[in-house]
Amino acid sequence: MNSASSLPLLQSLTGDAEIAALFADEADLVAMLRFEAALADVEAKAGLIEMAAARRIGEVCGAFEPDWDDLRAGVVRDGVVVPALVKQLRKAVGEPHSSAVHLGATSQDVIDTSLVLRLKELVALLEARLDNLRAALDALDARSGQTAQMAHTRMQKALPFSAADRIRSWTAPLIRHRRRLDEMKLRLLCLQLGGPVGNRSSFKGKGDEIASGLAGMLGLEPSPPWQTERDGLGEFAALLALMSGSLGKFGQDVALGAQNEVGEIAVAGGGGSSAMPHKTNPVSAELLVTLARFNAGLSGTLMQALVHENERSGAAWTLEWMVLPQMAEATGAGLRIALDLVGRLSFRSPHEDF
Amino acid sequence: MNSASSLPLLQSLTGDAEIAALFADEADLVAMLRFEAALADVEAKAGLIEMAAARRIGEVCGAFEPDWDDLRAGVVRDGVVVPALVKQLRKAVGEPHSSAVHLGATSQDVIDTSLVLRLKELVALLEARLDNLRAALDALDARSGQTAQMAHTRMQKALPFSAADRIRSWTAPLIRHRRRLDEMKLRLLCLQLGGPVGNRSSFKGKGDEIASGLAGMLGLEPSPPWQTERDGLGEFAALLALMSGSLGKFGQDVALGAQNEVGEIAVAGGGGSSAMPHKTNPVSAELLVTLARFNAGLSGTLMQALVHENERSGAAWTLEWMVLPQMAEATGAGLRIALDLVGRLSFRSPHEDF
Amino acid sequence: MNSASSLPLLQSLTGDAEIAALFADEADLVAMLRFEAALADVEAKAGLIEMAAARRIGEVCGAFEPDWDDLRAGVVRDGVVVPALVKQLRKAVGEPHSSAVHLGATSQDVIDTSLVLRLKELVALLEARLDNLRAALDALDARSGQTAQMAHTRMQKALPFSAADRIRSWTAPLIRHRRRLDEMKLRLLCLQLGGPVGNRSSFKGKGDEIASGLAGMLGLEPSPPWQTERDGLGEFAALLALMSGSLGKFGQDVALGAQNEVGEIAVAGGGGSSAMPHKTNPVSAELLVTLARFNAGLSGTLMQALVHENERSGAAWTLEWMVLPQMAEATGAGLRIALDLVGRLSFRSPHEDF
Amino acid sequence: MNSASSLPLLQSLTGDAEIAALFADEADLVAMLRFEAALADVEAKAGLIEMAAARRIGEVCGAFEPDWDDLRAGVVRDGVVVPALVKQLRKAVGEPHSSAVHLGATSQDVIDTSLVLRLKELVALLEARLDNLRAALDALDARSGQTAQMAHTRMQKALPFSAADRIRSWTAPLIRHRRRLDEMKLRLLCLQLGGPVGNRSSFKGKGDEIASGLAGMLGLEPSPPWQTERDGLGEFAALLALMSGSLGKFGQDVALGAQNEVGEIAVAGGGGSSAMPHKTNPVSAELLVTLARFNAGLSGTLMQALVHENERSGAAWTLEWMVLPQMAEATGAGLRIALDLVGRLSFRSPHEDF
Repeated sequence: MNSASSLPLLQSLTGDAEIAALFADEADLVAMLRFEAALADVEAKAGLIEMAAARRIGEVCGAFEPDWDDLRAGVVRDGVVVPALVKQLRKAVGEPHSSAVHLGATSQDVIDTSLVLRLKELVALLEARLDNLRAALDALDARSGQTAQMAHTRMQKALPFSAADRIRSWTAPLIRHRRRLDEMKLRLLCLQLGGPVGNRSSFKGKGDEIASGLAGMLGLEPSPPWQTERDGLGEFAALLALMSGSLGKFGQDVALGAQNEVGEIAVAGGGGSSAMPHKTNPVSAELLVTLARFNAGLSGTLMQALVHENERSGAAWTLEWMVLPQMAEATGAGLRIALDLVGRLSFRSPHEDF
Repeated sequence: MNSASSLPLLQSLTGDAEIAALFADEADLVAMLRFEAALADVEAKAGLIEMAAARRIGEVCGAFEPDWDDLRAGVVRDGVVVPALVKQLRKAVGEPHSSAVHLGATSQDVIDTSLVLRLKELVALLEARLDNLRAALDALDARSGQTAQMAHTRMQKALPFSAADRIRSWTAPLIRHRRRLDEMKLRLLCLQLGGPVGNRSSFKGKGDEIASGLAGMLGLEPSPPWQTERDGLGEFAALLALMSGSLGKFGQDVALGAQNEVGEIAVAGGGGSSAMPHKTNPVSAELLVTLARFNAGLSGTLMQALVHENERSGAAWTLEWMVLPQMAEATGAGLRIALDLVGRLSFRSPHEDF
Repeated sequence: MNSASSLPLLQSLTGDAEIAALFADEADLVAMLRFEAALADVEAKAGLIEMAAARRIGEVCGAFEPDWDDLRAGVVRDGVVVPALVKQLRKAVGEPHSSAVHLGATSQDVIDTSLVLRLKELVALLEARLDNLRAALDALDARSGQTAQMAHTRMQKALPFSAADRIRSWTAPLIRHRRRLDEMKLRLLCLQLGGPVGNRSSFKGKGDEIASGLAGMLGLEPSPPWQTERDGLGEFAALLALMSGSLGKFGQDVALGAQNEVGEIAVAGGGGSSAMPHKTNPVSAELLVTLARFNAGLSGTLMQALVHENERSGAAWTLEWMVLPQMAEATGAGLRIALDLVGRLSFRSPHEDF
Repeated sequence: MNSASSLPLLQSLTGDAEIAALFADEADLVAMLRFEAALADVEAKAGLIEMAAARRIGEVCGAFEPDWDDLRAGVVRDGVVVPALVKQLRKAVGEPHSSAVHLGATSQDVIDTSLVLRLKELVALLEARLDNLRAALDALDARSGQTAQMAHTRMQKALPFSAADRIRSWTAPLIRHRRRLDEMKLRLLCLQLGGPVGNRSSFKGKGDEIASGLAGMLGLEPSPPWQTERDGLGEFAALLALMSGSLGKFGQDVALGAQNEVGEIAVAGGGGSSAMPHKTNPVSAELLVTLARFNAGLSGTLMQALVHENERSGAAWTLEWMVLPQMAEATGAGLRIALDLVGRLSFRSPHEDF
């Protein structure tokens, strides 16, 4: 059989290519190289390494072509890519500057800061999508908010209300999520620079100065080292679950309102069935529920990684790597799907009981 | 056998009596009566009911003695206590004012606002405990921060650092949690008043006025109805898990540092063994890990309740009732245990490798 | 306000008194005393202690009245009740036999075996309830299986089928759960006897003989010590979640079929609303969904306790204590509620599209 | 930058190529084609379609080259690949036999049976790996079981025991997992054939005959349709978490025993550090803990999918697709890593306190 493209079919349903790219190895490597180049630059300014070394490191990082197989072997051996990467970088930088590469830093500084650099892009993406979705819901309200609908409580008809009432309950959480993202930036988008044991003692008394310069260059919040304090990531993961959860509520409402017997919500362009051509399935609405339940569960799993023992826990750290990217992608997929779904929604007045 | 007191033995280990009291039925009822009395008061001011009715309702609520068996039967029948409670209240208020009780409100207004009234007390409790714990850690730092310790990364000796370095990583998240609590208050401690279908249509055009007055009387944030938008509760549950997680990291560090072979941390007054009298077990430190893992898992379960279908979901709502109180109690227990543990901690320099 | 009875209102909705009793402190203590008496008996037969000692211990255990406050203090101090209990028991037994109490055993032998003794009762209860539920569904099938119903796939009308088809999908998993319970008994209902470090070295070469006799007396499977191997409990917790999940599917179907607009399923005696007297809410059906989601999440949390470090993990063990009993109760509640719900169900043919 | 190969770096650490291949789109498609060909064959034997049609369908399925882009578009539109696949197949089969393709079957029959066909291979793989791991542990016991070790309970030294005692607690659960796999095969490796609404009514009275023949041809258990009964998959997911959990306990023990201060376990060939060349990190042991916590959490998430509403739930079904394959891969990775780790383990007697 010919081979499927590299993107699994399921990914096209529940994934998000734009967000997946942020967590791809290439993006990680670009961000790690940005860290190493900037570190060399501020270390040179602080007098820890020579200016020529920083220049050379900057050049190398800017045009670096990794040996991926060697990196892969390094990951398997060391549990983290940085030792192999630094070795490759030092070789590429060559003498007399090789020892100036990564000076004073530890694997976690590179990995965590690379993550945060990409989370910064992710946060901007999520903000834009939240805004777009809100605008689409506002437009939906403007065009059909006055349609009469039947409110349902505990799975039974309650009393009439309006489509605008429904829409308000979908929009209001988005506004709060936007606010939450904003508030947590100060805690999330923080440089990690601690050195081997997280106290910057490896920077010869200039750790705070270097950290401050580095944060500035990278566009991150200056921060004390936080390598063992994973609450910022836990908070972010919870917010991803909150966003997905709110979208799941929207999806559930649509699926319920679009039942043939209810018929208060219509979804144009639903999915087909292999056995029943008469059906139009509210696939997008169901997917929002799926993604909500997925991220809800994963947020609880990510929280387990807060028990980060001692000064670095391989066990807890690797758990984050396995969980957070897929939560980000599921959240992005939810926002993408919801935006599309809003554009295909219309409301209908139920004929009876009004 | 004589009967154990009402408090299960395990509760004395992993529970918290002060917080459990906030979620007891009596506290719930007190808060619900406060809601009904205040509602009547603002409704009278808004002209929806007579002043005399409001006075009578206020008197009755102030001295109400519920028929608990009837409430229990109501819960089993209706899935929620409010219909039975309102019936009891109306009977106690008597004619001609009975119909003024609970006017325009729905079960969810009462239940959710009662919850929030008690969450307000809970938040204050947690803030105070966070502050106490932080002060205790500061004191520990002051008295022993200079003790040399060995940092450990990936379960192996790394390099020397100081007790102060350790303590900083335990304290820093507490400061952020305090900040998070503060930020989320505006989203969490919000009056719920929506009427049957959540749009205040049952308040004869005066819904917003009544809500504003009611929020003021109850000391809550005025807010649009949020009955189907459970992100505030999800966010709070996640913060409980974050707090427990940070304490779990502290506990794990203590348990690891207190291993006989490591001997860098000593815990006075540890637990005894039934078979090995020579042992001193770091029970408190282990418990912090337990509570972290418990709340991590439960936070993911609570997030499932965001998929709150339609205008009221009995299924999702009841899930919150089962999960949130025990998360609150576990968080409180963690703070209580951590405070006690800090007071019993001391650091010792390992003799080798320095 | 007068005080609510000791049973919280929520418990009457989502709890199960019969199963809660199995996990009450009194039941635990009775089982622990049974263990200690039987241990003394087999140790006497094996020549480890005197027959007179075993008799005296048996008498004391049979009529023991614990000092609960002292036990509570012991739990808080030691993290486990056994050291305090053994001390009380030794005092009650008095000289010259006090040292024969608990000889060779460790806290975990007592606690885990007490748990298993009560799980044996729980398993019998669950089996009986599964059988009753299945019989009730069979009766429902007999009386209304021929009613026409509309199948729904992906939240849309599919094609007609029959109530019998629906019922079959509710019954079939129950039969498998019954089988699973049966299969896992051999792995779950196993004596734990290991001594302090789990290798029976404390029984002077007679560990296996004592374990075999003890298992026989207590009606448990003989087994090597399993104190750090928690897969049996994890498997059982998963089965509880599977049972609750199948019941949740049943509940969800009923709630969907009982929607006013669908009207294919009627539930007699539904719950009332405080604001909308015309409503009849499918409270029981919703509760089954709640309990399914609750136990699903908790099963994942219990699984975290399999990482049981070294020869005894206080952290992992205590997590089981917090999670397993409430899962058992939720499962029992689900079976209780489902049985009641089946008795109130009837099917109606939808009028259209047939 | 040159592009990383298609396998993400993290995958080489926490993934398993052999198992990933079972869940790749190509393997899924091969299994679906096997289903369609076999279905045509048994339908021809049952007289539902012509023999010539079955032959033609068999030929086409045996050499089918899918249009992956069209399948991808189909997945996005329909939420499931089958409608697009069947359309492609029908076109390839051509007239007069196109309508004989997929006759009477529904998407879920194809998808679920394809999954089970691959789970059968997975189960065989897991069995083989469990056996290999057990053999490796037996060999470890044979070569070093007599080494003295210190047992630790509640993170404190307890009493001496032997490496054999340790090893026994790692091996015993593997034996039970093997047994569990065996027992659940009858419930897991079952043909799904139900037709559109799960009652085989689309097979013109010959549904059971066709199902029986099809199961035989595919090497699966004959079974009533189980499309909405997901307990078999939930049970399997739980077993994956149990396996990972037992391996996590093994990993945790190794990481604790290999601490420099403890030094009872040595791991040859540990990982390196970018900042501390003197370190040897027990990367594999940590990974086993990571994978245990990952699968524990995911098993609870998968259990949420048991609430499979009505006759097919897109929401619940898709959740399985997102969770189960990664659980399988994590389990396989754990077994792979554990086997490698056992080969690098040795025990050392602690010098003190014996």
